[in-house]
Amino acid sequence: MPALCHLALQIVLINILLPIERKAVVARLVIKFGGTSVANVEKIRFAARHVKREFEAGHEICVIVSAMAGTTNQLIKWAKEAAPIHDAREYDAIVASGEQITAGLMAIILSDMGIKARSYSGWQVPIKTDEAHGAARIVDIDAKNLLETMANNMVCVITGFQGIAPSGRVATLGRGGSDTSAVAVAAAINADRCDIYTDVDGVYTSDPRIVPKARRLEKISFEEMLEMASLGAKVLQTRSVELAMAHKVRLAVRSTFDDPDAKQNDFANNDGKILGTLVCDEDEIVEKQIVSGVTMVKGEAKITLRGVKDHPGVAASVFGALADERIIVDMIVQNIADDGKTTDITFTVPDEEYERAIKALKAASDRFEYDAISGSKGSAKISVIGVGMRSHAGVASSMFKALADKGINIQLITTSEIKTSVLIDEEYGELAVRSLHSFYGLDKEEN
Amino acid sequence: MPALCHLALQIVLINILLPIERKAVVARLVIKFGGTSVANVEKIRFAARHVKREFEAGHEICVIVSAMAGTTNQLIKWAKEAAPIHDAREYDAIVASGEQITAGLMAIILSDMGIKARSYSGWQVPIKTDEAHGAARIVDIDAKNLLETMANNMVCVITGFQGIAPSGRVATLGRGGSDTSAVAVAAAINADRCDIYTDVDGVYTSDPRIVPKARRLEKISFEEMLEMASLGAKVLQTRSVELAMAHKVRLAVRSTFDDPDAKQNDFANNDGKILGTLVCDEDEIVEKQIVSGVTMVKGEAKITLRGVKDHPGVAASVFGALADERIIVDMIVQNIADDGKTTDITFTVPDEEYERAIKALKAASDRFEYDAISGSKGSAKISVIGVGMRSHAGVASSMFKALADKGINIQLITTSEIKTSVLIDEEYGELAVRSLHSFYGLDKEEN
Repeated sequence: MPALCHLALQIVLINILLPIERKAVVARLVIKFGGTSVANVEKIRFAARHVKREFEAGHEICVIVSAMAGTTNQLIKWAKEAAPIHDAREYDAIVASGEQITAGLMAIILSDMGIKARSYSGWQVPIKTDEAHGAARIVDIDAKNLLETMANNMVCVITGFQGIAPSGRVATLGRGGSDTSAVAVAAAINADRCDIYTDVDGVYTSDPRIVPKARRLEKISFEEMLEMASLGAKVLQTRSVELAMAHKVRLAVRSTFDDPDAKQNDFANNDGKILGTLVCDEDEIVEKQIVSGVTMVKGEAKITLRGVKDHPGVAASVFGALADERIIVDMIVQNIADDGKTTDITFTVPDEEYERAIKALKAASDRFEYDAISGSKGSAKISVIGVGMRSHAGVASSMFKALADKGINIQLITTSEIKTSVLIDEEYGELAVRSLHSFYGLDKEEN
Repeated sequence: MPALCHLALQIVLINILLPIERKAVVARLVIKFGGTSVANVEKIRFAARHVKREFEAGHEICVIVSAMAGTTNQLIKWAKEAAPIHDAREYDAIVASGEQITAGLMAIILSDMGIKARSYSGWQVPIKTDEAHGAARIVDIDAKNLLETMANNMVCVITGFQGIAPSGRVATLGRGGSDTSAVAVAAAINADRCDIYTDVDGVYTSDPRIVPKARRLEKISFEEMLEMASLGAKVLQTRSVELAMAHKVRLAVRSTFDDPDAKQNDFANNDGKILGTLVCDEDEIVEKQIVSGVTMVKGEAKITLRGVKDHPGVAASVFGALADERIIVDMIVQNIADDGKTTDITFTVPDEEYERAIKALKAASDRFEYDAISGSKGSAKISVIGVGMRSHAGVASSMFKALADKGINIQLITTSEIKTSVLIDEEYGELAVRSLHSFYGLDKEEN
């Protein structure tokens, strides 16, 4: 790893220049706390103890903070009260203040604990974004200030969710953007790991509320996490996982509410029991599971267009009509019909969009020909995910058999390289998830 | 006035470059709203209507906003909860968010009313301060951005109370600093007037709670306002008046709660009934009152050192001992004693500092010699203020006679060019203020 050479150099430099009480730098970490982890001053103080532990272990640290839970909603409420439709740049100026408050409080608390710290607003780093106010993308981070501050034995506390646009105005990244800020800062400072502290203690093989035997995964690949995130495991924002994958930033999902002072085997040591879940490159996962997780999305409505006259561009016409209405389509299946001239297209939309979707398709019937339209609400999409599928044949067929054994009828099937999804009657959702979880050996052992 | 030539040029330029619906620019205004005027979204909307009226009258406008009432206190509470003693730079980062929120909301509301507006945080203007975080002084304002924005027919909404220090960190000006921000911006953009909207409708000849017949002053000179401000008329922050005097910025104190849509005779027109109070250069006040106001400060304790051995530096020793304890001394009177070798020194401190002051003086008795120390709490300082005193002899003596006529004993007397103050028994305070108010003809006429 090139990061190691870099670190060795860092250690030498620091020992020469800064004869301070801290041990030689062990690793460089980004530590991110979400809104519920910093909901009030006491919680910020608790979260700060995690930072203290890592600092005392000899790490260089950038902390990324969200707004205190509730603050952002209050600010959004005020902005809407001011005017339901308003300039996104002003919205950003208002909403960005939430993280600013948390960053200052975290810096004060760390200093009070004897750890030198300073807060940075996005514009002070600077974290440079594009002009898409309210949903901006980070385009560049100048890491110079952060590296200098850390080299001075200080912790940087940075506002998540925001940066500065080319116009010099504050831009926010959109909801959940603090995860993305954390990963982007980790990439910019070449961090050894980015720890996302949240209110769950890791990524699970399935939703523990549905599958009581769900296990915490010690490691999961970026690709699997992306499938998990977009399928309902709301632990990490999809965009942050994409960014982590692109920059090979190792992500750890950890619980804020773990005892911060307990002696720990650091992820970086890679020995002993792993806390939380490490999201990393597939290569770092030695024993790959065939299936890593089973997920469910309820409330899917299926719509079938029968006897669609097949010609180039017909699918674009159908889904274009839905996109025009901003209806998001999930699964899409197209079968070749017997006569070779017409085709059946089936797809799913959220239950609450069902009526609008039907209406939009009927209204656009001049754009494509079809014999009949039908559909129903109340389906669930069940997915099994695992990078191991790539090298193991028969995962899909074994899945179908496991469901058939329980008398569950499959309505639709879609597959990707590392995922197989089926649509079934919503009533059988929990049964299907639990059955598949057991079938693929994911159940935790009884205590 | 050079401002007029400047304006004429401005009008020509705007008519050529910007063929917009607004009339030619009439004047350039700064409009400032305090915390109670922007306490919630509805109040901000009400305040914005004042801006709208002035904008429609053809003025170029910069609005300065405070934090919503209560917000700053909440932020300070959190900072103290985080650590009772904390880095002023972090305190500033936290507290500055309050005005940021109001500025964004005001900009949204103005836009919603059809007036193009954009918010500026102090660092975006930039308003440059020194490094004295928590009590910073404005050192420079680059008006280029503001002038450009106003020339584009937009209103600038600027966060009060804050700026950016040379280090690139946000610095606040200390409590009440928004008045100072407003005056500094007015000086920087060469404004014709700086309107301070607050919860009272002007500066009064005396406190209306004590003197029901107190009148609103239509005009008051900077010098008088300074004496009024520091003597208890808490309408304008002293520092902002000093700054306005130095830069000859005409200040208007106005009520936010006046009907914003009522047809008005603008201050700038200088005809008709004046709304609020204009604080301006003495030269602008044609009919100078001998006395403009009567003020009272209660809770003064007087302390007398008798038989102090008089030699150069003795006063410095006495008051140095009090300064070391951070005790603020108000009135000071020194009499030459009969023998020419010893002197009596009398001064006042706030009642609550009385015991500490006595203790400090006794502890420092090695630094100066005296025969006896005595004193008592419960006095009131009554002052009459007026630039007319300069040219009218006998104001002081008539004041003493007026008090004597009511049987009020005078304990101490101090005078300045435009002010005479006496110390009396606190019990006679209200009687003294009302008597002097009548005596100098300040009582308003009965309706």
